[in-house]
Amino acid sequence: MATRVDLCNAIRALSMDAVQKANSGHPGAPMGMAEIAEVVWNHNLSHNPTNPQWANRDRFVLSNGHGSMLIYSLLHLTGYDLGIEDIKTFRQLHSRCAGHPEFGYAPGIETTTGPLGQGIANGVGFAMAEKLLADQFNKPGHDIVDHYTYVFLGDGCMMEGVSHEACALAGTWGLGKLMAFWDDNGISIDGHIEGWYTDDTAGRFKSYGWHVVSVDGHDQAAIQKAIDEAKSVTDKPSLICCKTIIGKGSPNKSGSHDCHGSALGDAEVAATRAEIGWAHEPFVIPADVYEGWDQKVKGAARESSWNEKFAAYEKAFPAEAAEFKRRTANELPANWKAETDKIIAAVNEKAEGNASRKASQNAIGALAPLLPEFLGGSADLTGSNLTSTGSFVHVDAKKPGNYISYGVREFGMAAIMNGIALHGGLLPFGGTFHMFSDYMKNGMRMSALMHQRVIYVLTHDSIGQGEDGPTHQPVENTSGLRYIPRMDVWRPGSATETTVAWVAAVEHTDGPTSLVLSRQNLAGIKHEASQLEAIRKGGYVFSDVAGAQVIIIANGSELDLAVKAAAELNAAGTKVRVVSMPSTNVFDRQDQAYKDSVLTPGVVRVAVEAAHPDFWRKYVGLEGAVVGIDTFGESAPGGALMKHFGFTVENVVATVKSVL
Amino acid sequence: MATRVDLCNAIRALSMDAVQKANSGHPGAPMGMAEIAEVVWNHNLSHNPTNPQWANRDRFVLSNGHGSMLIYSLLHLTGYDLGIEDIKTFRQLHSRCAGHPEFGYAPGIETTTGPLGQGIANGVGFAMAEKLLADQFNKPGHDIVDHYTYVFLGDGCMMEGVSHEACALAGTWGLGKLMAFWDDNGISIDGHIEGWYTDDTAGRFKSYGWHVVSVDGHDQAAIQKAIDEAKSVTDKPSLICCKTIIGKGSPNKSGSHDCHGSALGDAEVAATRAEIGWAHEPFVIPADVYEGWDQKVKGAARESSWNEKFAAYEKAFPAEAAEFKRRTANELPANWKAETDKIIAAVNEKAEGNASRKASQNAIGALAPLLPEFLGGSADLTGSNLTSTGSFVHVDAKKPGNYISYGVREFGMAAIMNGIALHGGLLPFGGTFHMFSDYMKNGMRMSALMHQRVIYVLTHDSIGQGEDGPTHQPVENTSGLRYIPRMDVWRPGSATETTVAWVAAVEHTDGPTSLVLSRQNLAGIKHEASQLEAIRKGGYVFSDVAGAQVIIIANGSELDLAVKAAAELNAAGTKVRVVSMPSTNVFDRQDQAYKDSVLTPGVVRVAVEAAHPDFWRKYVGLEGAVVGIDTFGESAPGGALMKHFGFTVENVVATVKSVL
Repeated sequence: MATRVDLCNAIRALSMDAVQKANSGHPGAPMGMAEIAEVVWNHNLSHNPTNPQWANRDRFVLSNGHGSMLIYSLLHLTGYDLGIEDIKTFRQLHSRCAGHPEFGYAPGIETTTGPLGQGIANGVGFAMAEKLLADQFNKPGHDIVDHYTYVFLGDGCMMEGVSHEACALAGTWGLGKLMAFWDDNGISIDGHIEGWYTDDTAGRFKSYGWHVVSVDGHDQAAIQKAIDEAKSVTDKPSLICCKTIIGKGSPNKSGSHDCHGSALGDAEVAATRAEIGWAHEPFVIPADVYEGWDQKVKGAARESSWNEKFAAYEKAFPAEAAEFKRRTANELPANWKAETDKIIAAVNEKAEGNASRKASQNAIGALAPLLPEFLGGSADLTGSNLTSTGSFVHVDAKKPGNYISYGVREFGMAAIMNGIALHGGLLPFGGTFHMFSDYMKNGMRMSALMHQRVIYVLTHDSIGQGEDGPTHQPVENTSGLRYIPRMDVWRPGSATETTVAWVAAVEHTDGPTSLVLSRQNLAGIKHEASQLEAIRKGGYVFSDVAGAQVIIIANGSELDLAVKAAAELNAAGTKVRVVSMPSTNVFDRQDQAYKDSVLTPGVVRVAVEAAHPDFWRKYVGLEGAVVGIDTFGESAPGGALMKHFGFTVENVVATVKSVL
Repeated sequence: MATRVDLCNAIRALSMDAVQKANSGHPGAPMGMAEIAEVVWNHNLSHNPTNPQWANRDRFVLSNGHGSMLIYSLLHLTGYDLGIEDIKTFRQLHSRCAGHPEFGYAPGIETTTGPLGQGIANGVGFAMAEKLLADQFNKPGHDIVDHYTYVFLGDGCMMEGVSHEACALAGTWGLGKLMAFWDDNGISIDGHIEGWYTDDTAGRFKSYGWHVVSVDGHDQAAIQKAIDEAKSVTDKPSLICCKTIIGKGSPNKSGSHDCHGSALGDAEVAATRAEIGWAHEPFVIPADVYEGWDQKVKGAARESSWNEKFAAYEKAFPAEAAEFKRRTANELPANWKAETDKIIAAVNEKAEGNASRKASQNAIGALAPLLPEFLGGSADLTGSNLTSTGSFVHVDAKKPGNYISYGVREFGMAAIMNGIALHGGLLPFGGTFHMFSDYMKNGMRMSALMHQRVIYVLTHDSIGQGEDGPTHQPVENTSGLRYIPRMDVWRPGSATETTVAWVAAVEHTDGPTSLVLSRQNLAGIKHEASQLEAIRKGGYVFSDVAGAQVIIIANGSELDLAVKAAAELNAAGTKVRVVSMPSTNVFDRQDQAYKDSVLTPGVVRVAVEAAHPDFWRKYVGLEGAVVGIDTFGESAPGGALMKHFGFTVENVVATVKSVL
């Protein structure tokens, strides 16, 4: 029978051999964390390798994602559908064993990690989702939502600012079922870390209200004891500081950054084999080692036991059980289309000329009764982003609810929302000033990379922001977000378009949406009934004249400028079509015939957006023109700035004339 | 004679009145921090209002920049060239009293603040610059660089991740002359912070190795005592936790978020006047209050005393003194042009086909002897970014030098570099993977907004990155950076272009530069001598044939693809010009005649860049084509990925044919 030493050495061998074969990768972390991994995955993690989707599984996050061979080894050894042939293709094109763990590639990968610090923040999101769902669904005697979240993280994660944001919140929220294991190996890429990392990390986490224990990360009994203790502390997240030797087992490279991010080399791989007593060929794992790791039977029993609990719950609370199934499957409610059509029509009927952030708040309020999965929030700008309505229950420190004040922590908010979305059962949205999407940009990108439905509410969307000045006025950011693959950006120009954008964001289950919203009031616009479906296409003919000579494309607060300029031009005999383009991303996905019906080939175009003009060349070409802004803004009342920077009917008219 | 109470009330009155007049702004922080400000500015800050540029002044940073009326009040009252008429224009177009403190607007503003957390990080940069310059210039008995950096910050700054990154480094570096005052008022925009901010902040900063004291922020004697104590601790930065009442003086709104971000209202302003006993009209400050604040005479004496010290230094060390003057004026060395021309010519002669990150390292090595102001660094990727050479002395915790391992802290690095650049005397550059420019994007934007020469070395610039996969492969980011006003982005296609890009970055004294560099080797290219100047224009004709029918525009690793495709096409009779476009930003600044000579109007164009294609429509229009990538990358060897995503000679040739 394989010993626990053998089990750990299997991780070491697979990791060093796969990295060696790819001649690329990070052997140090998997080799150093083998004992911790064995304790967690073989003796604590409640999972079922044959059903990685089991709703109540414990979540596991490898925040130090560069150590990806650790999780691939674990998934393979414990019985997930990840064969040794997959391991052999590590880091090759179309491999399920990508360079970093990619959500959706190998089964059992809960989140994509590699961008440091975000994994632990995702973990906070998983644990928060568990807590909030438990509050919403569990009933006395029926704890159907009841699982732990385990996170491995390294020094790099600890240094990143997002770890501060997320871990501080975890402490505030008292996430007792979150357990993080810090791989304290004293090495990062630049070498021994004492030159740039001297935090008393235990002290830091205690200051966040965490339970903290320190252990020898190669002492399995000590690790288990720490886990047991962490489980007994139910009102605080736990950090288990594990002193480890990076690359443990490698006689000449362990304990140094030489084994962090490169293959050990054939000679050192051989020397390591000898050192740890691993006589097997690369990618050969003895049957008794497989047996020692196998979690298939245990996992099936765990899920089966939960299924019984769920059946009892379903019997006692059929409506709640059905709702739990719907929400964990990320399905929309059955009446979604009918109800949202009514909501859109009602908003259009009123045709209010309020700010799109206000129209957004109205949309949130109208959709919330349909979507109990809504989990709202803001990075300390609730009253400005207008992300809350009366129906939300605000999470207050340790009290659950469905609206989160994330504090001034944009990146943390994004990464936590990613964890929440990945967990399933909740639909997170979060607000900040559009400008500070910069702070969380990589978190937004990760939503897109992982196909997660996270809705970003970005208000105060341009120089119309006004007095706060250029630090608070995005001019280049909207286009930057539009370039993120799979991110849908909407910048609506009316209350109706804002409502449609919200509905589209909820329906965009394959990726995130950014709602780019104005601080200032927009014109009150009542759309033609036929346009209500057209808005969903991202761009549509807002107003037309036969034989249009020029097309003005506009969106957001500039739609009204385009409408007024067109009226003036049409009155003077220049035939102008106005195209409203609230979402270029969605418009680009339409078929060519539709696109040509909106932007008739050969008709010269002028785009108007209070943002960097160059983006719009893709629609206006070299012959057309753009009314935009390619400098930073200024501090002044928004109306004064719009005029100062040329967002006037007069300038739009003049620009149209210049291209005819 | 005015009492200290009167002096503090002058801040309160100016702040509430200016916000009231603008009907926009944040009165709470200035009113709450008045006593702290009076102690610092009237009794500790070594500055000279009549010369805000004095090299050895103490630096002051208002990290909670929304409280801008605090600093405007202080600048006005202590005698800076900022009159009461300026204060009256607070938040109006072209006012020097912008909504947030803007560097370059009002005299005495050391850095632009408002994006929370970055001010304290700038402060760490100021203090680090002081320490490193002192090490480089001071001589026994001649402490010509010797000043403090004072930072005010609020809860928002404390929550932001960048404060973690920067403050951890400040502790590691033992910045004894950095003194931060935390406005601990328990309020942020969403309300009382106990629902989202429960850190033991003192404990947190102790864990970073800071000296921490807690005081009543309205007790001036206690604040002074804390400052004296902080000054006595010379090997640690100090945090003075100041318990304050936000909006102190306002009888009905103090202590609540109602006074955080809005005008108090006429009634409450009147009530506050009565409460604090301030009988003067708005914007009227009695002469004795001005007298109590005036620092002009004291300031001139301070500078004069330093001037005497500097004269003695100049006498003893004339070369060092001249160099100090040059460097604090941000002037290039006299031999710059001649020497850099030689360096460029030599690189071109060798025509090495190495990776542009390697060519960048060579450029750094060649330029370093000319630029003792170079302060290199990397966010824990020194060996990958190739940002260090043998000539650099690495800062190791408390030991000075001229190369910094920032740890895995991209945002902190950017914000610290901004502080260093603003301080003067050093030219900071810092590296990370291009992908993680996302993490520091707003810091990069702040470099641009503040006209600061900070050089960002962004390596592993596209899918050529290879095995690390899509989390590490920027596809949309280069264009996002190009849209930041005043940011020059270079993506060089040869060792020579890389060297020119570095020279241009150093010469771009008005703003930051992003050097976007390849992981993989480029072709070895020997440019025509005439091209060495042309490269400086950002885009130029790389190769031409008479009567070109099509122009291929390319850069970076794709330049070679364009060259090969052109050769194939030219051989087959299609006349192709190749334009190398390493910097669109620089090219766009050229005159129209030059631009037309490169991109002849009417000639169809094809752009090739392993990045999002839409950006290039500004050059190729609707008729041309782009070989680009609008999806995320994959994990595989870089060469395999380039082929997989269509970056092949074959595809470029086919694309050219498709537009003819």
